[in-house]
Amino acid sequence: MAQKPSIPQGTRDFSPIMVQRRKYILNTIEGVFKKYGFMPLETPTMENLTTLTGKYGDEGDQLLYKIINSGDYLKKLVEYQDKAFGHEEIDRTFLPSFDGKISNLDYKKALPWIAEKGLRYDLTVPFARYVSMNRNEITLPFKRYQMQPVWRADKPQKGRYREFWQCDADIIGSTSLLNEAELLKIYDEVFTLLNLPVVIKVNNRKLLSALATLINAPESFMAITMAIDKLDKIGEAGVKIELEKCGLNQTQIDQIISFLQISNSSLPLNDLEELFAGVEEGKIGVQELKTTFSFLGILHPLNPIKLDVTLARGLSYYTGAIVEVQAYSGSLKSSIGGGGRYDNLTGIFGLPGISGVGISFGLDRIADVLDELELFPNNLTACETKILFCYFDEESQIKAIELCAKVRNNGVAAEVYPDLTKKIGKQLDYANKLKITYACIIGSNEIASNKYVVKNLNSGEQKEMSPIELTQIN
Amino acid sequence: MAQKPSIPQGTRDFSPIMVQRRKYILNTIEGVFKKYGFMPLETPTMENLTTLTGKYGDEGDQLLYKIINSGDYLKKLVEYQDKAFGHEEIDRTFLPSFDGKISNLDYKKALPWIAEKGLRYDLTVPFARYVSMNRNEITLPFKRYQMQPVWRADKPQKGRYREFWQCDADIIGSTSLLNEAELLKIYDEVFTLLNLPVVIKVNNRKLLSALATLINAPESFMAITMAIDKLDKIGEAGVKIELEKCGLNQTQIDQIISFLQISNSSLPLNDLEELFAGVEEGKIGVQELKTTFSFLGILHPLNPIKLDVTLARGLSYYTGAIVEVQAYSGSLKSSIGGGGRYDNLTGIFGLPGISGVGISFGLDRIADVLDELELFPNNLTACETKILFCYFDEESQIKAIELCAKVRNNGVAAEVYPDLTKKIGKQLDYANKLKITYACIIGSNEIASNKYVVKNLNSGEQKEMSPIELTQIN
Repeated sequence: MAQKPSIPQGTRDFSPIMVQRRKYILNTIEGVFKKYGFMPLETPTMENLTTLTGKYGDEGDQLLYKIINSGDYLKKLVEYQDKAFGHEEIDRTFLPSFDGKISNLDYKKALPWIAEKGLRYDLTVPFARYVSMNRNEITLPFKRYQMQPVWRADKPQKGRYREFWQCDADIIGSTSLLNEAELLKIYDEVFTLLNLPVVIKVNNRKLLSALATLINAPESFMAITMAIDKLDKIGEAGVKIELEKCGLNQTQIDQIISFLQISNSSLPLNDLEELFAGVEEGKIGVQELKTTFSFLGILHPLNPIKLDVTLARGLSYYTGAIVEVQAYSGSLKSSIGGGGRYDNLTGIFGLPGISGVGISFGLDRIADVLDELELFPNNLTACETKILFCYFDEESQIKAIELCAKVRNNGVAAEVYPDLTKKIGKQLDYANKLKITYACIIGSNEIASNKYVVKNLNSGEQKEMSPIELTQIN
Repeated sequence: MAQKPSIPQGTRDFSPIMVQRRKYILNTIEGVFKKYGFMPLETPTMENLTTLTGKYGDEGDQLLYKIINSGDYLKKLVEYQDKAFGHEEIDRTFLPSFDGKISNLDYKKALPWIAEKGLRYDLTVPFARYVSMNRNEITLPFKRYQMQPVWRADKPQKGRYREFWQCDADIIGSTSLLNEAELLKIYDEVFTLLNLPVVIKVNNRKLLSALATLINAPESFMAITMAIDKLDKIGEAGVKIELEKCGLNQTQIDQIISFLQISNSSLPLNDLEELFAGVEEGKIGVQELKTTFSFLGILHPLNPIKLDVTLARGLSYYTGAIVEVQAYSGSLKSSIGGGGRYDNLTGIFGLPGISGVGISFGLDRIADVLDELELFPNNLTACETKILFCYFDEESQIKAIELCAKVRNNGVAAEVYPDLTKKIGKQLDYANKLKITYACIIGSNEIASNKYVVKNLNSGEQKEMSPIELTQIN
């Protein structure tokens, strides 16, 4: 019985023109990564769940795609049900008291019985895992780029897919702020090449940590950071409510809100220096930002790179610079790239004391924005064939195959319409639909004269060519 | 507590040099695909299990990686256990009679309760699914290429991984044998470009079908095909035993064995013509081979393309030409590519009557063979940086950043050693380890004279350059 096929929600097929457009973006990003000295790395699609879980917060753990173990996992599950309820021996008397709900704790205990592997959730954790596993082969500083898909069982919506590509560049084993500046310049250069105007926002987690110290709530650092991270979505009033929930008093909240205004100041770095004069970490954060901006002065970015003290970013592992990129126009308001410095990411895998900094490009969102703003180059076509050879009969088909082979030998994409058909119109139709530039129609006259008419299907222009002229088409 | 990280069995990390080598192969294949007019397609990593199951035989179904449904799948499993045993109501009295083993049938019934999605197993079935879903947007003949990873929960061994890449090219909607010839020529061209001598074997399933008719066992066609497919592994004696198991008598088996000798004949096509003089399908098969070889005569392949009547291929959907490629030398004896014609692949997805033909390259096996035979180009390096700028202090660091930016503006990969260190040796060590060709060491003298010494780290040669000469390095 014939199936009506479909694909999983949140995933997409990429038609030829879509692949070409995505490759255009990928090649642009990769070219810049290479120019800045980054080397490619690829990690497996599947990672052990022990590598992935606990790295992205509770929400992240729930969004991991898990792969069923090979073999008789259902039997293992029955066994698990026993074990999960404390019955090590096969004794199913527990079942009558089982209410059908399995608590989070049991869920976590159950997992290895049915799934030990999951799909890659981002590229940063696999990178940290790789560095830790290959520490003896790696030369530090290690500059790697990685462009691969990741998967999250998130609710699909505008700009959010369940399978999407990240393009990351990270430097580990170097604390120089030149890295921060070069990564910001890479953002600038890529989006300049893509003709997509963007705003690049920078902040430093040390300022947020110092802020927590300044208001006598150092233990609330991450809670404050997470509240500020929601500013775009819930506004200042919403952030105040979140901060109240953290147990902060009105004075503390007022201090935070007034800190958030600093980005609007004419000399924000001076204001920050003043504010954090008595907080060592704040002074360091300001100095890091100053140094980064002074390096950037030598690199001449073309897009605005703005200090934004309201930038917080959700991930817990950042310890220094944090960065985010937004498109200047278009309906997608969420970020199309982001990153930051982390001082101890490989520590969780047994390799402490290595600082790193990285950025990520969101391929799918960039593609959505370029599509909406009609910024893809016009010369990107699904099919790269330059010339189609058409013919009337078996004899002229052979000549078409010969000439086509010669054009291909010259490195130019060419095709012979494969099926014998008297209908030249059908053959030309194929060329027109695929936007092939030239068509060459071969019949007995052409073979006799050894001259071939090549028609430009865009302009309608025709030209008679010798076989040698033909093979030089491009 | 620090984890000792690992990756799942049968999967691999690809270090920078390994990625560069794989890209070299991928780019070579892609370049040839494009030259022959193929367009890129990409399908999701996850497919619905309804799309995948039943397409690769029972063994294939078992090798599919299945993804656990989101949400409270464990609760669903408890419910399943009830349903699987025919207890629609919550009634667990069945359990005492449950022996802990779940039959294959129950397993299949259970599956949707815990997993509705699986990882791509090959690129052909997703392609057929895509064509069927997008039939109205596709221009026929449709020539697509697809280069993506696939996953099989197979036992890892030499040349067999659980995550590996296929590079496929298929033409659907054309019955012309020119397609067969061009695909064979693509194999020839790619392996010529890779400097890897190969043997390309061709057969036609119609001969095997005609053989079954000839020996009065048409119903045993696929069983005979599967037996012949094992010839390489189990030898002629083994094939005989397999054929006996199919219920064939000694005369029939002798006829098959004598058919298998035909490849060794000096004029195999003539022998086949004679053998199948009375079997229509056999005559068609021979004619198809003749036509394919006559097209190939115009295309001038450089590697041997041999008719091999013992070539059978395991997949059931082939109906015409079948192809396989083996490396001429090296220890990997299994195929590094294969394909064939299928007349009704999209039929299972509701689009009957469309013939197609395709080939596949096994990236990972090709990489293994090139590695073993040391055929990767010497100029492939992990890092593509041409010049490293080294410096002594903050002032010379700024000059290094300026000069590096100029080299990069010229499209050449360049780096500044990021961290301030007086140890120039450490900086040069970095360049040497990464096989960076040039180093430029900047100090106050260089800044004063505006002349910079560039050292070729391979030859030891040094040259003093002006900033303009420096930026023209490549």
